[in-house]
Amino acid sequence: MSKGRFESFSDGVIAVAITLLVLYIDVPAPSHKQTLLDGLVDQWPAYAAYATSFITIGIIWINHHVMLGRLRRPDHAIMMLNLLLLLTIGVLPFATHLMAVYLQQPHGEKLAAAVYAGCYLMMSIAFASLNHHILFSKAHLLEVELPPAERRRILLRTLTGLVPYAIATAMALVSPYITLALCAAIAAFYATPLASSAQSA
Amino acid sequence: MSKGRFESFSDGVIAVAITLLVLYIDVPAPSHKQTLLDGLVDQWPAYAAYATSFITIGIIWINHHVMLGRLRRPDHAIMMLNLLLLLTIGVLPFATHLMAVYLQQPHGEKLAAAVYAGCYLMMSIAFASLNHHILFSKAHLLEVELPPAERRRILLRTLTGLVPYAIATAMALVSPYITLALCAAIAAFYATPLASSAQSA
Amino acid sequence: MSKGRFESFSDGVIAVAITLLVLYIDVPAPSHKQTLLDGLVDQWPAYAAYATSFITIGIIWINHHVMLGRLRRPDHAIMMLNLLLLLTIGVLPFATHLMAVYLQQPHGEKLAAAVYAGCYLMMSIAFASLNHHILFSKAHLLEVELPPAERRRILLRTLTGLVPYAIATAMALVSPYITLALCAAIAAFYATPLASSAQSA
Amino acid sequence: MSKGRFESFSDGVIAVAITLLVLYIDVPAPSHKQTLLDGLVDQWPAYAAYATSFITIGIIWINHHVMLGRLRRPDHAIMMLNLLLLLTIGVLPFATHLMAVYLQQPHGEKLAAAVYAGCYLMMSIAFASLNHHILFSKAHLLEVELPPAERRRILLRTLTGLVPYAIATAMALVSPYITLALCAAIAAFYATPLASSAQSA
Repeated sequence: MSKGRFESFSDGVIAVAITLLVLYIDVPAPSHKQTLLDGLVDQWPAYAAYATSFITIGIIWINHHVMLGRLRRPDHAIMMLNLLLLLTIGVLPFATHLMAVYLQQPHGEKLAAAVYAGCYLMMSIAFASLNHHILFSKAHLLEVELPPAERRRILLRTLTGLVPYAIATAMALVSPYITLALCAAIAAFYATPLASSAQSA
Repeated sequence: MSKGRFESFSDGVIAVAITLLVLYIDVPAPSHKQTLLDGLVDQWPAYAAYATSFITIGIIWINHHVMLGRLRRPDHAIMMLNLLLLLTIGVLPFATHLMAVYLQQPHGEKLAAAVYAGCYLMMSIAFASLNHHILFSKAHLLEVELPPAERRRILLRTLTGLVPYAIATAMALVSPYITLALCAAIAAFYATPLASSAQSA
Repeated sequence: MSKGRFESFSDGVIAVAITLLVLYIDVPAPSHKQTLLDGLVDQWPAYAAYATSFITIGIIWINHHVMLGRLRRPDHAIMMLNLLLLLTIGVLPFATHLMAVYLQQPHGEKLAAAVYAGCYLMMSIAFASLNHHILFSKAHLLEVELPPAERRRILLRTLTGLVPYAIATAMALVSPYITLALCAAIAAFYATPLASSAQSA
Repeated sequence: MSKGRFESFSDGVIAVAITLLVLYIDVPAPSHKQTLLDGLVDQWPAYAAYATSFITIGIIWINHHVMLGRLRRPDHAIMMLNLLLLLTIGVLPFATHLMAVYLQQPHGEKLAAAVYAGCYLMMSIAFASLNHHILFSKAHLLEVELPPAERRRILLRTLTGLVPYAIATAMALVSPYITLALCAAIAAFYATPLASSAQSA
């Protein structure tokens, strides 16, 4: 398996997933009861969830690229762990839609938020598993040999990325707004220059 | 026709098909009759069908890559057989949706399961036809010359892959749950390290 | 503009368009009035339109590749004519859906068929325009210099491809079934080895 | 981050966004009250919005390619600004749908038009920000060193591109038809040979 085709398939799946997000922003049905302005304003959770998920998936893509950049070529186990990671990324448009629909509902809003952040958590765990496997089980497939301390440092950084999503999932018990705000803050943090060094997966 | 553009088009179709699967996982409509938890739990067939189809299409993609990796360049017949294969892959999101909707219905559930596994069977037949054509009719287009025994061995392995889907299709007469479980087991088998050698198309 | 990125964008659009076709094959709603078998059989126009459009778009892609293969690099006019061609390809999922929904309706079925074949005709015209422009106005951008007779021969072949779609569009006045059968026959013709030489755009 | 994978991810997102536009062209439901011809004619705003958005996104893609063509390799800030640009492109199918649904409505039609042109304006601002950042903050990452006067000339051209969209957004206060016509005229201008020199981002 050449690395090029492996990367381009992953890129394709991530590019489609990120672009499908827009399908869940509804156009308010023309109505006499409500102005379009009210209709558009009322669905602000859809925009917040769209922007948060778009930036987050974009950052996953960047980190995915950095992770595979260390690899000379994939083997069967790497391809399968990568497929699991893509499966968790592919599910994010559903989680985003769920969050947008339920955020302002009187019932189910906490569960929806827990599922939303929980999907990011699952994705982060799949990412960390793949990174762990590449760094520690398949060190002979790395492009450049890395000293064990450096490998541990990279993995620790990936594992650190799990913590905010675990917190965001737990905070859904308190309020779905906190969960969404935390997920948005995580995305915003990675988008700043400050994260430039931390972002390298 | 350069092999690169041929592969990248196939990759594109497969990447879109695998990512469209998520569109069929519905967000339960907010309701007073049912909690969101019940709504999400009730649609477990959609998650099972999603995961099974995602892993299966991912494995098709890997096998497709191995198959084309043997080829120096495609000709007209290879491109047409590949197009038929992509047609059968493109239909899998529909089959997955059908399975998810009907699994727990009192009527039609066996037919839906037969169509689901039958679509995988059709796809496997299209795959085997293309592989047969490449190995036996277009041996002069192979990257590396393969002895007849090796070509027969590869084809036999591809044909062996048909059997579980034929069984899963037939078992739909008994129960759609068995069909889904068999399809999931086939995907899980290929995802294990054990399948690493068997997986090479 | 490098040819590689130009081709890969075109490939992406065509790959997405061909894969979106499946979204229009509906899963029959569970019902007490109709068995699933009847529901699936009744929507045979959707399968026929899907298969016809899938093969046709796949053949467009092959011809598109042959056409661009003659080009050393694109310029502004070529990119714009290609964008128009992609626009006509992008509309085909809609035309396919229209055909599938109206084929068996008592009203509108002829118009739907005319729109269906008419969209293929439009696409063929956009294809021929781009090919004419490349061969006659931008001969200096060709990979290999072609004698005028060869260029005329290629263009004539492209123009010949318009005729069956013009006939299929006109036959919609008689019956939508004839139009669909003609479009399917055109796709089947190009899929046979006989078309191998005729297919090169 | 290699430039190749960076470009191909951007291409993927843009190719999916442009192809999703077709999902919003509805097939009129078979009805006894209205002929299919009337149904198809009545939804002309959907065709106008589709064609305008398709050509515009295609031109964005060309300009994006020219912009990145100047770059040797991306860094963190460039990738993040590019992600914001992709986010604004990803939203265009929604804006196109909104325009098509509301153009002929008695209420909300001006707001819909303002949102439509406003989304293009936002996208142009994201484009200009990225181009400014590349040309002035990351001049050391350019493929070829550009004199300051040339860099200012390029940026000025990009900024000039904002003006028509600002006007189109403002004109929504007068009439949504003017806004749509202006957006179509901008797309048509860039599609002519006249724009060939102006189009280089």
